[in-house]
Amino acid sequence: MTFRLGLLNPNTTLEHTESMAALALSVLPEGTDVVALTAERGPETIESEVDHSVAGAEIAALVRTHPDLDAYLVACFDDPGLEAARELTAAPVVGIGESAYRAASLVAARFAVITTLARGVPALEDAVASHGLASRCVGVLPLAISVAEHERAADAIVSVGRRAVAERGAEALVLACGPMGTTARALQEEVGVPVVEGVAFGALTAWSLWRSGLGTSKAGAYGYPEPIPYAGMPDFGRTGVA
Amino acid sequence: MTFRLGLLNPNTTLEHTESMAALALSVLPEGTDVVALTAERGPETIESEVDHSVAGAEIAALVRTHPDLDAYLVACFDDPGLEAARELTAAPVVGIGESAYRAASLVAARFAVITTLARGVPALEDAVASHGLASRCVGVLPLAISVAEHERAADAIVSVGRRAVAERGAEALVLACGPMGTTARALQEEVGVPVVEGVAFGALTAWSLWRSGLGTSKAGAYGYPEPIPYAGMPDFGRTGVA
Amino acid sequence: MTFRLGLLNPNTTLEHTESMAALALSVLPEGTDVVALTAERGPETIESEVDHSVAGAEIAALVRTHPDLDAYLVACFDDPGLEAARELTAAPVVGIGESAYRAASLVAARFAVITTLARGVPALEDAVASHGLASRCVGVLPLAISVAEHERAADAIVSVGRRAVAERGAEALVLACGPMGTTARALQEEVGVPVVEGVAFGALTAWSLWRSGLGTSKAGAYGYPEPIPYAGMPDFGRTGVA
Amino acid sequence: MTFRLGLLNPNTTLEHTESMAALALSVLPEGTDVVALTAERGPETIESEVDHSVAGAEIAALVRTHPDLDAYLVACFDDPGLEAARELTAAPVVGIGESAYRAASLVAARFAVITTLARGVPALEDAVASHGLASRCVGVLPLAISVAEHERAADAIVSVGRRAVAERGAEALVLACGPMGTTARALQEEVGVPVVEGVAFGALTAWSLWRSGLGTSKAGAYGYPEPIPYAGMPDFGRTGVA
Amino acid sequence: MTFRLGLLNPNTTLEHTESMAALALSVLPEGTDVVALTAERGPETIESEVDHSVAGAEIAALVRTHPDLDAYLVACFDDPGLEAARELTAAPVVGIGESAYRAASLVAARFAVITTLARGVPALEDAVASHGLASRCVGVLPLAISVAEHERAADAIVSVGRRAVAERGAEALVLACGPMGTTARALQEEVGVPVVEGVAFGALTAWSLWRSGLGTSKAGAYGYPEPIPYAGMPDFGRTGVA
Amino acid sequence: MTFRLGLLNPNTTLEHTESMAALALSVLPEGTDVVALTAERGPETIESEVDHSVAGAEIAALVRTHPDLDAYLVACFDDPGLEAARELTAAPVVGIGESAYRAASLVAARFAVITTLARGVPALEDAVASHGLASRCVGVLPLAISVAEHERAADAIVSVGRRAVAERGAEALVLACGPMGTTARALQEEVGVPVVEGVAFGALTAWSLWRSGLGTSKAGAYGYPEPIPYAGMPDFGRTGVA
Repeated sequence: MTFRLGLLNPNTTLEHTESMAALALSVLPEGTDVVALTAERGPETIESEVDHSVAGAEIAALVRTHPDLDAYLVACFDDPGLEAARELTAAPVVGIGESAYRAASLVAARFAVITTLARGVPALEDAVASHGLASRCVGVLPLAISVAEHERAADAIVSVGRRAVAERGAEALVLACGPMGTTARALQEEVGVPVVEGVAFGALTAWSLWRSGLGTSKAGAYGYPEPIPYAGMPDFGRTGVA
Repeated sequence: MTFRLGLLNPNTTLEHTESMAALALSVLPEGTDVVALTAERGPETIESEVDHSVAGAEIAALVRTHPDLDAYLVACFDDPGLEAARELTAAPVVGIGESAYRAASLVAARFAVITTLARGVPALEDAVASHGLASRCVGVLPLAISVAEHERAADAIVSVGRRAVAERGAEALVLACGPMGTTARALQEEVGVPVVEGVAFGALTAWSLWRSGLGTSKAGAYGYPEPIPYAGMPDFGRTGVA
Repeated sequence: MTFRLGLLNPNTTLEHTESMAALALSVLPEGTDVVALTAERGPETIESEVDHSVAGAEIAALVRTHPDLDAYLVACFDDPGLEAARELTAAPVVGIGESAYRAASLVAARFAVITTLARGVPALEDAVASHGLASRCVGVLPLAISVAEHERAADAIVSVGRRAVAERGAEALVLACGPMGTTARALQEEVGVPVVEGVAFGALTAWSLWRSGLGTSKAGAYGYPEPIPYAGMPDFGRTGVA
Repeated sequence: MTFRLGLLNPNTTLEHTESMAALALSVLPEGTDVVALTAERGPETIESEVDHSVAGAEIAALVRTHPDLDAYLVACFDDPGLEAARELTAAPVVGIGESAYRAASLVAARFAVITTLARGVPALEDAVASHGLASRCVGVLPLAISVAEHERAADAIVSVGRRAVAERGAEALVLACGPMGTTARALQEEVGVPVVEGVAFGALTAWSLWRSGLGTSKAGAYGYPEPIPYAGMPDFGRTGVA
Repeated sequence: MTFRLGLLNPNTTLEHTESMAALALSVLPEGTDVVALTAERGPETIESEVDHSVAGAEIAALVRTHPDLDAYLVACFDDPGLEAARELTAAPVVGIGESAYRAASLVAARFAVITTLARGVPALEDAVASHGLASRCVGVLPLAISVAEHERAADAIVSVGRRAVAERGAEALVLACGPMGTTARALQEEVGVPVVEGVAFGALTAWSLWRSGLGTSKAGAYGYPEPIPYAGMPDFGRTGVA
Repeated sequence: MTFRLGLLNPNTTLEHTESMAALALSVLPEGTDVVALTAERGPETIESEVDHSVAGAEIAALVRTHPDLDAYLVACFDDPGLEAARELTAAPVVGIGESAYRAASLVAARFAVITTLARGVPALEDAVASHGLASRCVGVLPLAISVAEHERAADAIVSVGRRAVAERGAEALVLACGPMGTTARALQEEVGVPVVEGVAFGALTAWSLWRSGLGTSKAGAYGYPEPIPYAGMPDFGRTGVA
């Protein structure tokens, strides 16, 4: 039996989907497959809460149209639509943000989170707190570069990361800056502490839950949605029933 | 100068919009107006996280298309898209859920939250906690009736509410069951403690912020969204700039 | 029917009472009145916990002697006697400190609190935490001036406030420095983020609760006080009963 | 050198002062003295927040008029005026409420708090939380008797206490019902778990701080109060300076 | 390259080691190996804090004597010696307790923990809280059977578990009762919600970290121990250096 | 009747035991005795979690072999084996770490903790938080000297301490650097704020509990350990029964 992971990219940039799917596939064991799915509409990258709100609805739509996979990975660092996706399936659903925080907390007593824009700091601080890890995080640190200067990101991460280690006692770094995740392993060498992105560990976590015989509970909060009529778009009510 | 409040109903049921707008208008002072807006697509009522995820995107769309109002009220108890709406305007934006929790915490040391379905309890508990009010809430209590038995709701609220007062020490009740909000004042008499719904106090809070000269900060988290290209739908990037 | 707000100044400086009452009256809607009440004994300004302890008893005394107003505003930033006042009436009672924190949290994801003396920082930090807003506050910052240098306060607020925005990510400022509150609107222009004092929004909040039909719960913590005999001063036990 | 403990009773009932002073004296080591002080005005017992607000000011007044003692014990379970008293002296100041919570947390992983009136439950829950002990407390439980039925209190404590042990996993009981404290030792035998009142351990804690060479810090929050003019009553500003 | 997982059983019962190693091996992918290690001295099962304190030292000893494995699993639900083990290696180290809590929080919004003895409840509550998951846990529930009645454990788990689902809103169960873990999958069918033990998911988590290129950070808290001289037993100082 | 305090040093350095016992004896009242006990095996000083894990087991062993004392003091700042020791006796058991935190919180609104090595910061932060005092602590600050430079420690403490007062608002200092504790009183003069070590106040706290008639609860978490068979070492099961 082949395990098939639905990698759900809530932005509309196909290259992001592909690079993340390749990373997931490179770590999953033999006999597994990655079904890479990209949002049909919405932002090319997700930077604001507005983008996030659109992305959440797209994640739900992707699970509705692909209900038969063995596990799902929400592949955007702020985990949009994660709870909604869980309602639509009895398979495990994992977010790359929550996976990265958890991996960091398993290999380090204290970690720092690195992101691109300062405006995103409060939302990331709140996310860390909502996972119960506020006391483990020594800071959410924005890179001092604009998005346009993208190619300089790796240098900036190394610089900001080293300062986080030296001045704040960070013992690991979490990269909350999406597409740069694929460079985590290389950066780890340079900074000298574990550098965590969520795609590899998140894909493995989804597989590990499945492999342990665990799926999303259908009792309570993540039960299939009530069959509410929808206007102007397909409803979700039947999804899980068939 | 007339104050105009945008009342944003994220579900697609026009009667809900109208009854909530009437309630808001009945408490706002002279010389104010309520612009009642209904989601163009999505669920008729919001029960699940799936519904919530769609609703959040619709709230953002409503603010984008009505950017010139003096304040906004997100008129659904789980406050979908509240943070997104704040990014799109410099006017105050208030949710009815957060308003109801705040009103209850101003008139009572301990309150209970009453909702329809048991599946919604964890999300409401999390919402109360995210507002820093976990220690003020003695319980989130589902009514023991199905949605279809709607007409019996008032009786059930009185019964569940009285038990919350007697057995858990609730000193006020928060109604997290949307359309029943309009009956709060009548129920108050029967239960004997303050019964809070969020529409009236929320509309007044939005007006009070405006009246105090306060609007949504454009520094940091609620700054106008970055101008990200969107595929398959209008983007949001320019909204606040013009 | 005229709404009458009891504005309770727990210090003994009449000018403070008058300027705060004028500010409240300037924002309340037509047909409302402000009854301005000043403590009969105690400190001219409230700086220490000692001053605060005296002020709390004076607030209770003011409500006892003016039991028939429609709502009350405790007009001192550290909200002395707020809980006691709530016991003595079924009308809403609001503090300017709690109002300022709540207003800031509605217009900004992160705020800073500005106060005069460094010694007051722990008590303000504790107050923010007791309202469940610790994660929303990036710092309580004392002005680097003595009380005697009062006239330089506005400059100092602008300077400390700008640094809080630039270095700590404050998106709004809360002024916990009493009489300077009246200058909040002017400072807002200079600093470029919302500047919140509690008198205007607090008065509006008290009115909004009343307007929503909500009053202090008499079940539980805020029930009328037990009729305990007092020695050497009038008792409180009958206040609410008559 | 004789150690002199100021036992400060913030209610006006002399017998309470005397029985608490006797208890304190019975446990303090040789060569120590207890100076028993009773509030000059205010309630005969402290039941409500109104009573508490008056009591806080009286505690401050007692320290002002007796500034030369070696340590102070605020002898009322809700620790009124504790922070104010600390400002007025460099000697250690301890409350019986905080002492009782601390003692219980040293001899048991989980404790219950027993009080007389249900209305007092929220304030006690908040007090436990403010000491960082919320997770250690399995419940604040009111006795099912009125104050007038005082003589039945011991039986009620045993009955409520045994249920707390059997049903909630309480491993110790904290008596937050003032004058009954003196019976703690007898009740301990009957209930079979440690029964803690705060007077004995609180007096010993005050002495222990003094004996360890520790006094209230005069840097920061507990510095002597600013010399603010007072109207209608003596000021506090000079107390600590002379 | 073969991945070798050190499964560390801190009690001295060989059968426990073997059954847990078999479970781990049954879920790990091809080409991996489990090195099953049993404490050389100490309790046959771990029930009390005394047992736990001995077990912690034994875990450290097992890592010292087997320093070359690719990852380690501390195979006792209260994760004794986990932090110590992390200091002794740059490989990932995972505990079965933390793994079980994390798995439950990925498949359910609310979970209950089931354990054998009531005396263990506080320590498990504290463990859940220390992982930041207190708000996710609806209760730690002891089975109403003694250890000797071991064979009736499965029935008791089903009975206690069903009540936790029906009465407390548990959406998943965590089995904190060691050797019964191997029956989790069977129980899941009967109770109808996910039933989580930590060995399978813990072994997979350890492998997943390794597979993602992540190991224990040697900066900060988990750096190799200082080379302190030991009396009466081998020291640990050199372990990581060679 | 003579009170006998068991001072339990979990490291193997006899001079540490002796100097701590002398300090304890110097503050305890007439007619008390200190029984000084040193770990039979393990590290000469405790710096890492590995050392801590060994120390915990040694503390349990010391109580097992000396079960008849009136109270116990765990005399190592990270309180190893504290919970285990409590299981083994009905006498009070106190740790010097928890005692120091509590003393500081009684004499100051905010305190800083000073330790030797940066690696120990996370564990101390976690300890402060586990005692519910995170909001009271302005920082855990490592000295910028190596252990070998021991003689310079006093200077470094004064320097780090003064900065903590001036820059972080520390109002008291807690010395979490073991043997330097004996110099606390001298340092207090130099730094100008209370300097707390845990041995003196901890010994007095243990005595105060005993003097108040309070001992470790044997209901629940700290009940005598279950009689589990041990391999390779003496068991603990009978200790408390005889």
